[in-house]
Amino acid sequence: MDNLRKVLVSDIDSGKINIFGRLGRVRQPLPLLFNGSGIEVVVTGSELWIDIETNSDFHEPWVAYELNGALMARQMVLPGEHSICLFRNMEPTTPKRVRFYRELQAMSEDDYCKVLVKDLRLNGEFCEVPKYKRKIEFIGDSITSGEGSYGATTDIDWLAMYMSASVNYATMTAKELEADYHIISQGGWGVFCGWDNDPRHNIPSVYEKVCGLVAKGSPVDKELGTSEDYDFESWQPDVIVVNLGTNDATSFDQVPLYIPELGETYKMRKNADDSYVREDELKIENAIISFLEMLRKHNPKAHIAWCYGMLGSQLNMTITEAMNTYRQKNRDENVSFFQLPNTTMETYGSHMHPGLKSHQNATKALCDYLIEKMDWK
Amino acid sequence: MDNLRKVLVSDIDSGKINIFGRLGRVRQPLPLLFNGSGIEVVVTGSELWIDIETNSDFHEPWVAYELNGALMARQMVLPGEHSICLFRNMEPTTPKRVRFYRELQAMSEDDYCKVLVKDLRLNGEFCEVPKYKRKIEFIGDSITSGEGSYGATTDIDWLAMYMSASVNYATMTAKELEADYHIISQGGWGVFCGWDNDPRHNIPSVYEKVCGLVAKGSPVDKELGTSEDYDFESWQPDVIVVNLGTNDATSFDQVPLYIPELGETYKMRKNADDSYVREDELKIENAIISFLEMLRKHNPKAHIAWCYGMLGSQLNMTITEAMNTYRQKNRDENVSFFQLPNTTMETYGSHMHPGLKSHQNATKALCDYLIEKMDWK
Amino acid sequence: MDNLRKVLVSDIDSGKINIFGRLGRVRQPLPLLFNGSGIEVVVTGSELWIDIETNSDFHEPWVAYELNGALMARQMVLPGEHSICLFRNMEPTTPKRVRFYRELQAMSEDDYCKVLVKDLRLNGEFCEVPKYKRKIEFIGDSITSGEGSYGATTDIDWLAMYMSASVNYATMTAKELEADYHIISQGGWGVFCGWDNDPRHNIPSVYEKVCGLVAKGSPVDKELGTSEDYDFESWQPDVIVVNLGTNDATSFDQVPLYIPELGETYKMRKNADDSYVREDELKIENAIISFLEMLRKHNPKAHIAWCYGMLGSQLNMTITEAMNTYRQKNRDENVSFFQLPNTTMETYGSHMHPGLKSHQNATKALCDYLIEKMDWK
Amino acid sequence: MDNLRKVLVSDIDSGKINIFGRLGRVRQPLPLLFNGSGIEVVVTGSELWIDIETNSDFHEPWVAYELNGALMARQMVLPGEHSICLFRNMEPTTPKRVRFYRELQAMSEDDYCKVLVKDLRLNGEFCEVPKYKRKIEFIGDSITSGEGSYGATTDIDWLAMYMSASVNYATMTAKELEADYHIISQGGWGVFCGWDNDPRHNIPSVYEKVCGLVAKGSPVDKELGTSEDYDFESWQPDVIVVNLGTNDATSFDQVPLYIPELGETYKMRKNADDSYVREDELKIENAIISFLEMLRKHNPKAHIAWCYGMLGSQLNMTITEAMNTYRQKNRDENVSFFQLPNTTMETYGSHMHPGLKSHQNATKALCDYLIEKMDWK
Repeated sequence: MDNLRKVLVSDIDSGKINIFGRLGRVRQPLPLLFNGSGIEVVVTGSELWIDIETNSDFHEPWVAYELNGALMARQMVLPGEHSICLFRNMEPTTPKRVRFYRELQAMSEDDYCKVLVKDLRLNGEFCEVPKYKRKIEFIGDSITSGEGSYGATTDIDWLAMYMSASVNYATMTAKELEADYHIISQGGWGVFCGWDNDPRHNIPSVYEKVCGLVAKGSPVDKELGTSEDYDFESWQPDVIVVNLGTNDATSFDQVPLYIPELGETYKMRKNADDSYVREDELKIENAIISFLEMLRKHNPKAHIAWCYGMLGSQLNMTITEAMNTYRQKNRDENVSFFQLPNTTMETYGSHMHPGLKSHQNATKALCDYLIEKMDWK
Repeated sequence: MDNLRKVLVSDIDSGKINIFGRLGRVRQPLPLLFNGSGIEVVVTGSELWIDIETNSDFHEPWVAYELNGALMARQMVLPGEHSICLFRNMEPTTPKRVRFYRELQAMSEDDYCKVLVKDLRLNGEFCEVPKYKRKIEFIGDSITSGEGSYGATTDIDWLAMYMSASVNYATMTAKELEADYHIISQGGWGVFCGWDNDPRHNIPSVYEKVCGLVAKGSPVDKELGTSEDYDFESWQPDVIVVNLGTNDATSFDQVPLYIPELGETYKMRKNADDSYVREDELKIENAIISFLEMLRKHNPKAHIAWCYGMLGSQLNMTITEAMNTYRQKNRDENVSFFQLPNTTMETYGSHMHPGLKSHQNATKALCDYLIEKMDWK
Repeated sequence: MDNLRKVLVSDIDSGKINIFGRLGRVRQPLPLLFNGSGIEVVVTGSELWIDIETNSDFHEPWVAYELNGALMARQMVLPGEHSICLFRNMEPTTPKRVRFYRELQAMSEDDYCKVLVKDLRLNGEFCEVPKYKRKIEFIGDSITSGEGSYGATTDIDWLAMYMSASVNYATMTAKELEADYHIISQGGWGVFCGWDNDPRHNIPSVYEKVCGLVAKGSPVDKELGTSEDYDFESWQPDVIVVNLGTNDATSFDQVPLYIPELGETYKMRKNADDSYVREDELKIENAIISFLEMLRKHNPKAHIAWCYGMLGSQLNMTITEAMNTYRQKNRDENVSFFQLPNTTMETYGSHMHPGLKSHQNATKALCDYLIEKMDWK
Repeated sequence: MDNLRKVLVSDIDSGKINIFGRLGRVRQPLPLLFNGSGIEVVVTGSELWIDIETNSDFHEPWVAYELNGALMARQMVLPGEHSICLFRNMEPTTPKRVRFYRELQAMSEDDYCKVLVKDLRLNGEFCEVPKYKRKIEFIGDSITSGEGSYGATTDIDWLAMYMSASVNYATMTAKELEADYHIISQGGWGVFCGWDNDPRHNIPSVYEKVCGLVAKGSPVDKELGTSEDYDFESWQPDVIVVNLGTNDATSFDQVPLYIPELGETYKMRKNADDSYVREDELKIENAIISFLEMLRKHNPKAHIAWCYGMLGSQLNMTITEAMNTYRQKNRDENVSFFQLPNTTMETYGSHMHPGLKSHQNATKALCDYLIEKMDWK
């Protein structure tokens, strides 16, 4: 360990590091803001370490790393400085590809949660990293945050350790399609409202910020500028996969929510025949239409595929009605709707969320779809 | 065989025979008009035979039979009278459940094609047959006709022998859900036009007849009254599964079709960006809207699930736009859209149609969907 | 059908027909003596028929045929002459490969059971047939007779219709390895005795005859010479797969059997600790040793692989002890023991025998084994 | 973390902790000597930590832990003291089951390698742990050490990080059968000699010691007494699974090995026909016979199942010949041979060793076998 040289992330030549996930102004140390956010290097030498700094309150971050594409380790990181050995005693001349990433979603409920990569230490050289052919942005809720992808089927606590980027259709799809990717997701949130009817918990409201899920004015925001406008031109995806709607659908079956700060009670309502009250359904539809317009504004060329259904397809008619309205209104044919395979008793992970098998099923279907739709390969 | 007694189908007590598939006026001999049309009995005795009469020109019918739910035989039947032994030498006191059915779809292109069940011969007794809990009507194209469900992946002839009810998501779904079922399907046809742009090849135009797929005025029609109005009140489904759209989508990629009888050329058109010409897309949408209205008229209580996607999901936006228009126009919330799993390289049967594995995948997804949607079980 | 020309099987050039299964003196009409016995041709033309003659008493034969490797039909054939259309209306210039074969094992319990292929009728030409790279002989019991490969899991009658060559690891293995193959098998029989302790029901006693399973002196024997010595030199396999032992193992758990003709009672015995009485175990071992010597005598170069375990592996120690004794005694290292995957609750067919999935599992394991063992491919 | 109370492992009531793996004299801190060695507790409270001390030279240990049976984390541990949080912020009243264990095999090539569990820290109470119904001892080589169960298929370094107890048929089998279990295994070792012909690398030579794989006289041995005689009476298994032979078979294909310390060259030889030179084959057989006698001496009632074949079944005849000799010589029928499913191209992990899927296949087959053999359940 003594003979290792330290290299700041910012000092690695851009052709010799892949950085996954959205970035803001701060680049050194490198903040990993979302699940799946991480770095990838190819190095020679017998040994590689990474130095990170983390903080958190209730929801401690988890990290994982892969060697040559295979998961090697996954662990909790509590507040502090961490030096993690990524490999040692390896044959020094063979290039090793290592990806280190954040498992935990951006946490809207923890004002201190952060993962910063400071440097790597190694006794070899950085090599060219694989250049990914495509770029995909995944926008979603708990499904895309990998919630329940770890844990026993009986586990029901809502905790950081059950979420992941490692067992996640977004990561698997990006890998399978040789794509660079971004994840922007939050458990419990919707396109219009959260699972509990909270209208503040909608992804569109945070999409235009670097990481709008971090509370504005929080210590992390102050340090990292997460509430600043995101520079969309810096990274233009070929495809945007929107996997939202599951929580909006759930809200119809939940009790009314009184929000003291807003002084109002919120509730999405059903008719006697179990159909949605049209007025409330239209709230979702309008949110979808506006969000599609926002996505298009910032990503003029991306194909926008609304990919929904891993936890039921209750909102199929609603989402497609909104998408068709958007399509006609904006004369934009570069959108599509694709239903992902539902999670079944055999494919659940913990607390009734998709497990490994469900994420694999979704990956298979989504890859087949995108390859054909985009005429890839 | 000498000691068997012959019982006309019409003489079997209605509680002791299940008849699958639409029926018209003629009941003895019993016409099996569609794939999946058949009879099911439970009998004691050591031996059971069925006597059928068939005819055909180019497209000979195929039949199959099952013993206690397992496929035992499948064979071609050429024009003539056939006595088929369904089992022999079995333990006489044990009741045996036998289902005999037509494999071949109703043939719009063969004016002589028919399968008539005359009688059963047995040395035991008819027992009560299982009463199915539910009724499902499947409306579709080649997928629902089981085209390509038999045959090698390299086979490309368009022949009767490749079609089936035995390897077919409709049959499998009905069995899995313990449902009586009807199939109305035709290879190459759409909701608005056929795969080759022929606007006459649409299922709605024949839906209201007993078996409108048989040419009006043909020998079969004269004998069996297939072009007479179907008595919808005789059989009201709980669910109608509409699996149409695949051929309508294909028509956009085919050459223009000149139809001498109509004196016109037909072509569904695409824009330069590969999207559908709106005028043509609306033809499909209007056909869908009208068809949904027709279905609702005749089946006031049925849930109508448009289940599409086994050969691509190109028409998702189009179908859902039409369904939403229908839904709002008619204030009818008892419709839904569900995407079936696509067929992949590993799941193709012959001539690029779904094979066994694809039909099994569709069955699994559709059963899960219907159980939840209908709150069954 | 009128314009078809009839060609006797014996008139087809040997390079234009593959014949599967053992043959004796009689070649025209061609007897199909075992399950899997059949013919394969490649023909042009639009139509192909086969003319067969069959007979039977209790156990009627079943036949099946494949087009380009895919199963198209399977049916019972009762005593008489049968003309079966194998295809019609096909594109005439494309060569079509057709395999027609017997589903039912050689029947030791039916003195009349036979399937004779007389001729083919066609309107095209015979083409060269695929030449198989390897030859495999499969020797077995009900497992190799495909017993239970058809039928519902609840079916327990012992009937011809549940047996097959179509759903059978022997057929699947031969196809996968591009091998010509013979099957010699009989349900209920063992290497030393039958499942019910009958010592007459052992395969070695019939192995050297053309089809020793047909009763000596029976009508079929008289007509076809099935009890004549088989000409081993006519067909030398590369590998002999022996799948025997399951019934020998079962005999230990059955009641004693008194055989009036022999005036004796037979019973394989267990010790109090459930192990085999050594004296009886040695009966099996001696039978195995003698059988291996018989196999080697007639097949000097074949690798002999004892492949056992699809219905339990109780006899592993016994079989291998005998094989090792044979190996040392004869200085013959060209033998091996390979355990096949057991059948489980999920993979049973009817009457607790291997179903399709079990035969597929066995095929996968056996192919992997033989490829490596024989250094094939 | 401040309000946690520390409890030494030795102070936990024996009914409230399960300890997996062999133990010697030293119990506090608790040494985890083999892969799979670990502790299991059920606790209330919101937070649980474990304090361990580790050391190593080249081959650093890895550890993993599970929550309620699901893997949560896996990480490298370098020399030093480690406090690892096993969970935090959980609902305090619900009992949580946690298993913490060593991933890395006992390392014969690292004189410093150790993992010691000192204590747990918690803010809840220890509850009764599940009592396992059965006890199984697994004896093996790299397969049982989980070598290659982690890592990319292209990885070929021989490193600690690729080995595991978490992706391992032994662990999975024990869990599935609700069994307490011990693992004694070493990569590269055989029953007679190692893969490279080294006759010192045989498991029987170390079996009778607490952990004979640790070098006698090494610092770890001095501290933990690993070379002392193991107290077999302290833990009598119901079944011993011996998965040895793979390296003995490999030795025949390797170059001769000169061992300076022994002043001799070692080589297992093949005949021209690729069969084993009988003299060398008998060395393996004698080793097997002696090992079976040793196992029986120390485990008088255990069923001994030699379960072999995950990396080829070349030694089937050899192993069974030896087992049969043992069986007859010792009149011991309480032994059996069972072949495990081979690893195939689709189921390899890294450096051509079994991956997850192969370990799952082996688990399925072995569980089915043991349940039937032992009449469990």
